Amino acid sequence: MSTLTGLLQKMESRHSIFEEAVRQLPLPVCPAFGDGATLRAISFAPGERVLRTKDSDSVAKSFPKSVQASGNAVLAAAGANPNVSQGKRVAVLFSGGPAAGGHNVVCGLKRILGQGNTLFGVKPGPKGLIKGNLFEITGADVDGIANTGGFDFLGTDRTKIKTPEQFQQVKETCIKHNLDAIVIVGGDDSNTNAAVLAEYLFSGVKADGSGVQVIGVPKTIDGDLQVGDLLPISFGFDTATKIYAEMIGNILQDTRSSLKYWHFIKLMGRSASHVTLEAALQTRPAVTLISEEVAEKKQSLASIVDQIARSVIERAAKGVTHGVVLVPEGLIEFIPEMNALIAELNDVLAHHADAFAASSADERIGFVAARLTAANAALFASLPDHVVKMLLADRDSHGNLQVSLIPTERMLADMVKVRVGQLDAKVPFGAHCHFFGYEGRCGAPTLFDAAYTYNLGLTAGALILDGRTGYMAAVNKLDAGGQPLAIPLTGLLNIERRHGQDEFVIEKALVKMDSPAMQFFMARREAWSADDLFSSPGPRQLWGAAAQQMPISVALNSGAESLTFKIG
Amino acid sequence: MSTLTGLLQKMESRHSIFEEAVRQLPLPVCPAFGDGATLRAISFAPGERVLRTKDSDSVAKSFPKSVQASGNAVLAAAGANPNVSQGKRVAVLFSGGPAAGGHNVVCGLKRILGQGNTLFGVKPGPKGLIKGNLFEITGADVDGIANTGGFDFLGTDRTKIKTPEQFQQVKETCIKHNLDAIVIVGGDDSNTNAAVLAEYLFSGVKADGSGVQVIGVPKTIDGDLQVGDLLPISFGFDTATKIYAEMIGNILQDTRSSLKYWHFIKLMGRSASHVTLEAALQTRPAVTLISEEVAEKKQSLASIVDQIARSVIERAAKGVTHGVVLVPEGLIEFIPEMNALIAELNDVLAHHADAFAASSADERIGFVAARLTAANAALFASLPDHVVKMLLADRDSHGNLQVSLIPTERMLADMVKVRVGQLDAKVPFGAHCHFFGYEGRCGAPTLFDAAYTYNLGLTAGALILDGRTGYMAAVNKLDAGGQPLAIPLTGLLNIERRHGQDEFVIEKALVKMDSPAMQFFMARREAWSADDLFSSPGPRQLWGAAAQQMPISVALNSGAESLTFKIG
Repeated sequence: MSTLTGLLQKMESRHSIFEEAVRQLPLPVCPAFGDGATLRAISFAPGERVLRTKDSDSVAKSFPKSVQASGNAVLAAAGANPNVSQGKRVAVLFSGGPAAGGHNVVCGLKRILGQGNTLFGVKPGPKGLIKGNLFEITGADVDGIANTGGFDFLGTDRTKIKTPEQFQQVKETCIKHNLDAIVIVGGDDSNTNAAVLAEYLFSGVKADGSGVQVIGVPKTIDGDLQVGDLLPISFGFDTATKIYAEMIGNILQDTRSSLKYWHFIKLMGRSASHVTLEAALQTRPAVTLISEEVAEKKQSLASIVDQIARSVIERAAKGVTHGVVLVPEGLIEFIPEMNALIAELNDVLAHHADAFAASSADERIGFVAARLTAANAALFASLPDHVVKMLLADRDSHGNLQVSLIPTERMLADMVKVRVGQLDAKVPFGAHCHFFGYEGRCGAPTLFDAAYTYNLGLTAGALILDGRTGYMAAVNKLDAGGQPLAIPLTGLLNIERRHGQDEFVIEKALVKMDSPAMQFFMARREAWSADDLFSSPGPRQLWGAAAQQMPISVALNSGAESLTFKIG
Repeated sequence: MSTLTGLLQKMESRHSIFEEAVRQLPLPVCPAFGDGATLRAISFAPGERVLRTKDSDSVAKSFPKSVQASGNAVLAAAGANPNVSQGKRVAVLFSGGPAAGGHNVVCGLKRILGQGNTLFGVKPGPKGLIKGNLFEITGADVDGIANTGGFDFLGTDRTKIKTPEQFQQVKETCIKHNLDAIVIVGGDDSNTNAAVLAEYLFSGVKADGSGVQVIGVPKTIDGDLQVGDLLPISFGFDTATKIYAEMIGNILQDTRSSLKYWHFIKLMGRSASHVTLEAALQTRPAVTLISEEVAEKKQSLASIVDQIARSVIERAAKGVTHGVVLVPEGLIEFIPEMNALIAELNDVLAHHADAFAASSADERIGFVAARLTAANAALFASLPDHVVKMLLADRDSHGNLQVSLIPTERMLADMVKVRVGQLDAKVPFGAHCHFFGYEGRCGAPTLFDAAYTYNLGLTAGALILDGRTGYMAAVNKLDAGGQPLAIPLTGLLNIERRHGQDEFVIEKALVKMDSPAMQFFMARREAWSADDLFSSPGPRQLWGAAAQQMPISVALNSGAESLTFKIG
């Protein structure tokens, strides 16, 4: 074997030169946890902030133990903990889609728990907790995963713990493994689940009548888990948006090099448009759609298409026959008329299932169109063929269309082509489409996400050692050293009607029209459309002058004076 | 305006924190060009290497002036140039698809030409040369584009200069702008065009009977412009493959986190599979298809699908229900039976155009299938519906199908799903598909591409100042400081029959089965399929410990002992 082939084999299984290098990066700690050389666990004390939602009274009835204990007051760090628990057995799991930095949460947990306590990993996700699939995490394990991307150390899944049998199974796992605490790393649904589990396991789990603590950690690349200044952003958002922004920047550079294409880029992020807004702020493309604005202005699909087509034409008048359009994943569900059309289509297909099935492929579109109201029929007729076919495709078991499967970016590109032709047939228009999603969930964390998640892990561990349950670990003041705190989960719960019954939910944070980030975007977008003012944020750097940037939207919304984060 | 919003506006138009930082990176120079503090132009002298192809004799007849001047001998650097030309007027243009590092070629050119000569930019590409659209490039211009991605400084286009009128127009541009030299930055076709232009402009262009020098610079992300140890790789390949490899690494990490999906990823790179092979060497996924191997083994589509399906099933037997399949863009044209089917389909549709057009959508597939030979009919029947529809779609003006539009990755995923079901219906299989292409062409160059292209620019400029024409600038020994040299373009030319007439072409370098890179890949791929041995190369770094890597395939093929490049 040559020197080089030997080296290449050593690089297999997560030992690339990059992966080896990031493992050696320092992990900064918030001042509350000490100077970094030795970690200190901290205690927490309630401050003046008490959280309420419209449903707080109902929540208090359903979560009596949790609410009585916390009073829904936010906990702040209160100095070194003089009474650190020892001998605690703590389990950690990932829930839902992966996000960069999850591994550092585990590192932070392991290190703050120290030698005196035991940390277990649950494989995979809530399903692993139900099944009781736990293993002890060693110091070598966490050295191996520090600063690496993905959730692959533990795996993840999307099981929602909701049936009495599932709750009972979780309790049995706790008893079997003699657990004292569970840390759930997840998004809004997972943290809701953490709140329910915290109440369920509050007391009476073990023989001595004690309970099992449950702490949530705020994860989601979508950025829709935010609690004002208490939780400026969920982890994973920074890395995902920087990955997407690099690719968008590269494509913008390509449009101005090749001089002939428009690129329509759909970005992951489910309902909220935080990811798309951040990517726009990073790259300044010609057109960016924000779902929340579409809903607020009750925009029709035609008006959205028209808006893009006019940008195409105005730029072409200056000789600029290229551009980029950013499209948030959830756009369609924010267009009121599309919801109306899809609802009526679901009805028509349900009521005429047999006749529809008996029609030939050539007849089906006409069959359905004839049974729609005039407004819906007109909208239906305006859609590209491939979208029409999807709208007539098989429904799920509830008779609903999987709206998320509609290729919004392709639909818009096709409709813009038609519209540009109507407005000015001489304007050239060629389009490419992209969907950036999976690429952004499991990249190695940015220094921001790496430091943030390590300190979220430290905070979650410190909460456990301080005997707390039913809180979400948080770190705010991310440009001023970082300040650990704890958000009472019950203080975030609302009640929503879903599938015909009341459910507790943490409301998804949507982009606010009056937020500084949205206001800045709205103030600049016309200039970005009029001319190529884009920039390329480049690949995220872990070393050097470009490595210390926080998300632009977070910096704007938190009133920061620069993009430089400071944790530790 | 707040401090932050002011900062954000300053970041517009290519002034992101990253872009500002990369402009300040040092640009290393090969020892031949001096110590970096002051550049020195060098002279060149023919060495012992003389290039020949099977068509050298015919080429010599068509390119008498060029071949007589060069003797097809490779030129090596021969010390400081004592007779550096002054007052030269040089034009530079980009041709074909963009690639990272083009801007640094311009920087290198500008700096070696120095104050005594003038550099012009041609906008855009060959079309700009024909139109005579030139402007003078200043020192401030090149400071502004150093180390940035894209070809946007000049733009690019794909015009091939071939008609007598076009050649005459180029000559007029040379006369009008009193040019002494043209630098064409492009791929195999563009460098062939450079060879033809060099001969055409060799002499008698200007009033004094002198000619215009033409120098090519080897660009293409596809990596298919290689000349053994003389030209180990074209520029842009390293950056593009590192961009794709990061995304593939992120997705691999996602597969092992989410534990439920196979991802089929098609990679740009036209015919050759260099990009795919390099990406595989960087990331080690479960399955990688190499078009050249498919052709050599005359693999059927069914056997390719079967190979992937068996990997799916073998991994599932170990509980691994996820993986990644890399698919080279040009795969289909390397599958002999697919070529046969497409050819027969073209015939059938041409001969039965009216009857086909008169058939209903439901009847068309049967109509065509009944007119195919048995083998082709069987293959046709095995294809997914969406591919069948594409195969029956409109032909181009020559009656041919645009094979490149077939979504190979989706076709394979669909066929693997069917095949897995046949082999073992209990094995779960869910797939996502991606195409990575445009994202990789215009990213900021890696340090490798940045240094390589700057020295290619220096070499091209030094060749001009040394009075040379008809050469491609090259730099080899990329792990030993870098050595400038010049490859006689006529020494690379072959004759191919295209569209019914003989054309000169530089043969595309395909992946060789016996190359060290391919051999290493073949030695390891079974292990990569059997288990998750992948690694994530991470985002390309411009600073820090992971920044100095050359392409793995280039390192292997050139017998390097490590992945560390050394230029300067």
